[in-house]
Amino acid sequence: MVRRVVFAVVFCAILATFARADEGMWLLNKLPKEEWKQKYGFTPTDDWTNHVRMSCVRIGAGGSGSFVSPDGLIMTNHHVASDAIGDVSDEKHDYARDGFYARTRSDELKCPNMEMDVLMQIEDVTAKVNAGITTDIAPADAQAMRKKAKAEIEKNAKEKTGLQPEIVTLYHGARFNLYLYKRYTDVRLVFAPEQQIAFFGGDNDNFEYPRFNLDCAFLRAYENDKPAKIEHYLKWSASGPKDGDLIFVAGHPGRTQRLYTMDHLRFLRDVYAPMLLTAHNQREVGLINFMARSSEAYRIGKEDLYGVQNSRKAYCGIHSGLLDERLMMRKQTAEDKLRAFVNADPKRKAAYASAWTELSSALNDVRPYYAEYFLIENRRANLCRHFDIARKLVRAADEKRKPDGDRLEEYREANLATLELGLFSAAPIYDDLEQFKFEDGLIRLGRFLGGDHSFMKTALAGKDAHTRAVELIAGTKLKDIAFRKKLYEGGSAAIAESDDPMIRLAREVDAPGRKVRKQYEDRFESVERSAYARIAQATFDMSGESVYPDATFTLRLNDGTVKGFDDAGTHIPAITTFAGLYERAAEHANTPPFDLPKRWADGKSKIDLSKPFNFISTNDIIGGNSGSPMFNEKAEVTGLVFDGNLPGLVWDFIFDMEKGRAVGVHSAAIIEALTKLYDAAPLAREITGK
Amino acid sequence: MVRRVVFAVVFCAILATFARADEGMWLLNKLPKEEWKQKYGFTPTDDWTNHVRMSCVRIGAGGSGSFVSPDGLIMTNHHVASDAIGDVSDEKHDYARDGFYARTRSDELKCPNMEMDVLMQIEDVTAKVNAGITTDIAPADAQAMRKKAKAEIEKNAKEKTGLQPEIVTLYHGARFNLYLYKRYTDVRLVFAPEQQIAFFGGDNDNFEYPRFNLDCAFLRAYENDKPAKIEHYLKWSASGPKDGDLIFVAGHPGRTQRLYTMDHLRFLRDVYAPMLLTAHNQREVGLINFMARSSEAYRIGKEDLYGVQNSRKAYCGIHSGLLDERLMMRKQTAEDKLRAFVNADPKRKAAYASAWTELSSALNDVRPYYAEYFLIENRRANLCRHFDIARKLVRAADEKRKPDGDRLEEYREANLATLELGLFSAAPIYDDLEQFKFEDGLIRLGRFLGGDHSFMKTALAGKDAHTRAVELIAGTKLKDIAFRKKLYEGGSAAIAESDDPMIRLAREVDAPGRKVRKQYEDRFESVERSAYARIAQATFDMSGESVYPDATFTLRLNDGTVKGFDDAGTHIPAITTFAGLYERAAEHANTPPFDLPKRWADGKSKIDLSKPFNFISTNDIIGGNSGSPMFNEKAEVTGLVFDGNLPGLVWDFIFDMEKGRAVGVHSAAIIEALTKLYDAAPLAREITGK
Repeated sequence: MVRRVVFAVVFCAILATFARADEGMWLLNKLPKEEWKQKYGFTPTDDWTNHVRMSCVRIGAGGSGSFVSPDGLIMTNHHVASDAIGDVSDEKHDYARDGFYARTRSDELKCPNMEMDVLMQIEDVTAKVNAGITTDIAPADAQAMRKKAKAEIEKNAKEKTGLQPEIVTLYHGARFNLYLYKRYTDVRLVFAPEQQIAFFGGDNDNFEYPRFNLDCAFLRAYENDKPAKIEHYLKWSASGPKDGDLIFVAGHPGRTQRLYTMDHLRFLRDVYAPMLLTAHNQREVGLINFMARSSEAYRIGKEDLYGVQNSRKAYCGIHSGLLDERLMMRKQTAEDKLRAFVNADPKRKAAYASAWTELSSALNDVRPYYAEYFLIENRRANLCRHFDIARKLVRAADEKRKPDGDRLEEYREANLATLELGLFSAAPIYDDLEQFKFEDGLIRLGRFLGGDHSFMKTALAGKDAHTRAVELIAGTKLKDIAFRKKLYEGGSAAIAESDDPMIRLAREVDAPGRKVRKQYEDRFESVERSAYARIAQATFDMSGESVYPDATFTLRLNDGTVKGFDDAGTHIPAITTFAGLYERAAEHANTPPFDLPKRWADGKSKIDLSKPFNFISTNDIIGGNSGSPMFNEKAEVTGLVFDGNLPGLVWDFIFDMEKGRAVGVHSAAIIEALTKLYDAAPLAREITGK
Repeated sequence: MVRRVVFAVVFCAILATFARADEGMWLLNKLPKEEWKQKYGFTPTDDWTNHVRMSCVRIGAGGSGSFVSPDGLIMTNHHVASDAIGDVSDEKHDYARDGFYARTRSDELKCPNMEMDVLMQIEDVTAKVNAGITTDIAPADAQAMRKKAKAEIEKNAKEKTGLQPEIVTLYHGARFNLYLYKRYTDVRLVFAPEQQIAFFGGDNDNFEYPRFNLDCAFLRAYENDKPAKIEHYLKWSASGPKDGDLIFVAGHPGRTQRLYTMDHLRFLRDVYAPMLLTAHNQREVGLINFMARSSEAYRIGKEDLYGVQNSRKAYCGIHSGLLDERLMMRKQTAEDKLRAFVNADPKRKAAYASAWTELSSALNDVRPYYAEYFLIENRRANLCRHFDIARKLVRAADEKRKPDGDRLEEYREANLATLELGLFSAAPIYDDLEQFKFEDGLIRLGRFLGGDHSFMKTALAGKDAHTRAVELIAGTKLKDIAFRKKLYEGGSAAIAESDDPMIRLAREVDAPGRKVRKQYEDRFESVERSAYARIAQATFDMSGESVYPDATFTLRLNDGTVKGFDDAGTHIPAITTFAGLYERAAEHANTPPFDLPKRWADGKSKIDLSKPFNFISTNDIIGGNSGSPMFNEKAEVTGLVFDGNLPGLVWDFIFDMEKGRAVGVHSAAIIEALTKLYDAAPLAREITGK
């Protein structure tokens, strides 16, 4: 044991020399300007920061992007746009397989279910959210008070500005910021390469490096049926980055847990990660089987498969990191230091020390019903699209009758437009796929909750899962958008009277679902918020407010350097080339997932093979950053984030830049491919402004 | 709820008309002769039964087969022989992919790790095993007494007969039979078709019907380096079966749980099945990833993948059945009837009623540590071959110093030859594959047991799972058979002194592993045995001894009929043809897993396409029956069991022949393929005796 501790200490000491190096998902209103000045001799002006902020877009439920022309052209990843690419495809047009390019504006295809947000304003509303809350109020009651205050703030902001409000909880509860977004809901597909080159190497190469993916897509924001006129967009770098260059990333990292306590990390390791991975593994195996049924099943299933594989691989990396005592020891050392600081002063001890023990108790308390909460309520029941729609309709009818502050968050006035966009989306629904998902999802619930759980009894209704999936999907009319609209507009009466079998099921499981959600929110989430608010305050007391908050799928800015890494004695250079792509395909005899699209195989001679393709940098990113622009001090695009490498997966809970890297498409690769292979010179000209 | 019960009752009533139809895995010394006489006008003579018994072989750890020539030729499935086919292949000869045919005896390839058993004698030793055990002795103590008695009986039998003894626990503890086997350890590969035709349709078509698999292989038993001279072997039917024919199956069904109590079935449903499926799903996803690395990785990984997929699909079917209230209601009705019979008489109640409650308590007791027992001890740790070998060496050193009756079962004198066959097998070990398995296995343990479990701490030794897997596999010398032999012969001293890292790990985790195994055996298994002995006795009191025991991977005989079934209004005929094979391949554009081997694609014109290929019957089989001969009243081979269909998966706990079927290769298909496609007329002549 002694040897192990010594080793860990030595390891920490080595890493300390890198510490804080390029770490930090900085809020745009709280940039580490002094630090950057010292490191790079560069200080962002307010104009620069505002220009970057308004050039960035947040895409739907999980990606990033940026404006790259004054006519609303948006650059993002193929894999961020892939749901949309699937939605505009059909049995005759498989744009995921074949790629897409709209030669004229009138060819651009409207994506049925897409929202884009641009961050216009930030306001600290911590005091308003916490108004009237004193230490003698129980966490659940305090949480209810905050919920009402937040609804009120959002409602007022929306009325006053017309912008889309969102109150962002920072530091897991220590700060509340009001973010106001300009929202675009008419988004059209302009260009997508073949999925095979966007995702060259497939699940195999995902999170690996060296890498050769043209993981880009271009969309366009429309307003009033015309391309949006954009004031702030990023210009294009003439050369793109080279090894050692400073590089910025602005995007929307989704979720990190770097401020979590040790007990909370152990909960992730022993409860959350195993549950998530078990669910993912089952779904992945099921989808592979489903897709093998026919080529059409392959087409309609592959988006789901890629999503599950990506998440599975990412969370495997996080879970492995959580099992790695060397990393956990570093976290323990940091926690010990903070707790010692708290305990050293009686006033601080009185104010903060209970946070750790209360959170620890809450984590023990939530364990027995966490699977139930996670699977049924935390948007993971994931039985099928019809069931999701049915549940939303059933709940919307109930919630819309309540005062705004009493509603479940997703049914608050400020969020109804998003709810309706999803509810009435024309995105295709495939019965075969949904039937598989319902059966597979029900079996998953059975595995976790047991066959005697009331949800199982209700959902199975005395039959086997396959029979139920078939009869429910065949019996429901929810595929019909007009039918959904009628139920939505009909409110509670229409829901109560409906004999649609999926609505009936959603009605029957609604009350138990709400119960477990309330239990979770009252007994766990409120304690969690309260505990982390105190822990964050203790951290501020110790280190000042220089610490950045965990990721919250809101805009962050980060600095880094284009840089290779050493892997088991081999140096992996930072930048790959087109030549490397052709070599890797040849190595694997051009067999899937290393097969080149025909255009690429045939067009090899047209390309300058020495041009850069992908590259890595030390930028601190995480899932949600996909599609983020990478740019230089002049705010010129030099690349496009599309992945992190395997050693970077642990960045979920600890940053470590020894081997961890962000992976991007080089800006020059995009232009080379558009002009030489896709005959898309007009698009390239719009991007480069030439 | 009322409607559901009525429905279930109606359903039971319908099924009652089929009840006992072809159900029954009959012991060869307890055949239902009277029933068969009435059903078929056929009564097996003792000579017939003995001939069948001695024509059958049990293969290694999980399959069945039969002698089909006087020169020791054995027929079984390709998938039963597939480990052996992999073991005799290498980088230059991929017999799984290409098939194999030994044109002369000297070309036959010795399989490095294969045992075949022929059942020579059966003796009821229940009284001897239970001698001296009275009702006042605690279950754990009674179990220890039985263990000693069994070791003694086996040892004496082996000394007296030279045969391989095995005490078989029937009815989960109500009866003990001594089985004596003639064992063959020199087994050679004679013929195997390409895996692609043996397993045509792959995981997709597995457990499906209609079906087109030439899932056969031929081996030969040798004695003293010469083909074994066999007195009892099955002759070949001239025509094979047609629709409606009576057909027998003799083979080794592995394990059923048809006599389980409802509480035990719920344990299977909510604890065992989820755990098994979670482990399988993780391994399947991991193997698919591993195999994608290179064509060599594909070759060395595919046996494991097929095994996992097969087991996953089978247990998914069982789990779905356990979640099906209609089936569970039938089980409940049967249990209620038996318990009412017990409770109706004070003497019976005193003797038997506690069995259900004691078992129920024991099932609750085992739950918290079942994962630990199952994963670490129940042969499922499955970290890698090296670790398995290391653990066996470490334990053998300890166990061999103890009196025979005190040893763990697998180290008893009667079982040492099998242990040594595995320990010193020359079957190839691939470091890459084993490294993947170690890492994947350790992560699996982490998912179930949590990162703070002592096994994880010891196995990880403060590092991450990948690093540990690399260093342990690189550091161990256990691939060297001579090294293993030296450690085995060196006993405890050699083990204690060894600095081999894998031996060290096995040593460090040995005591905690033994502890949880002892806890399981003392607190659960002994109660289970005692409870089922009483429940079986109650069943005998109610119905006589006409009930067959659950499967125990020992020889059973079963009767059935060649018969199609109705699926959602469509009649599925019993027999497929060669023509159907070519149609199915064409339907899928000859793409994997529906691609034909070149020999088959090119040879279509040589074949009589109207000949039968596969067929289904109502025979009551389960995993372990793979490779069982199917034969007529004259004991002539008419087919070869290789699968059951999806509706038959629930046969694990309940027999239902509405749609459930056994799936076999038609005897005529084997001869047609051997003569027309494989240029193997000599083998065909040996089989048919012409």
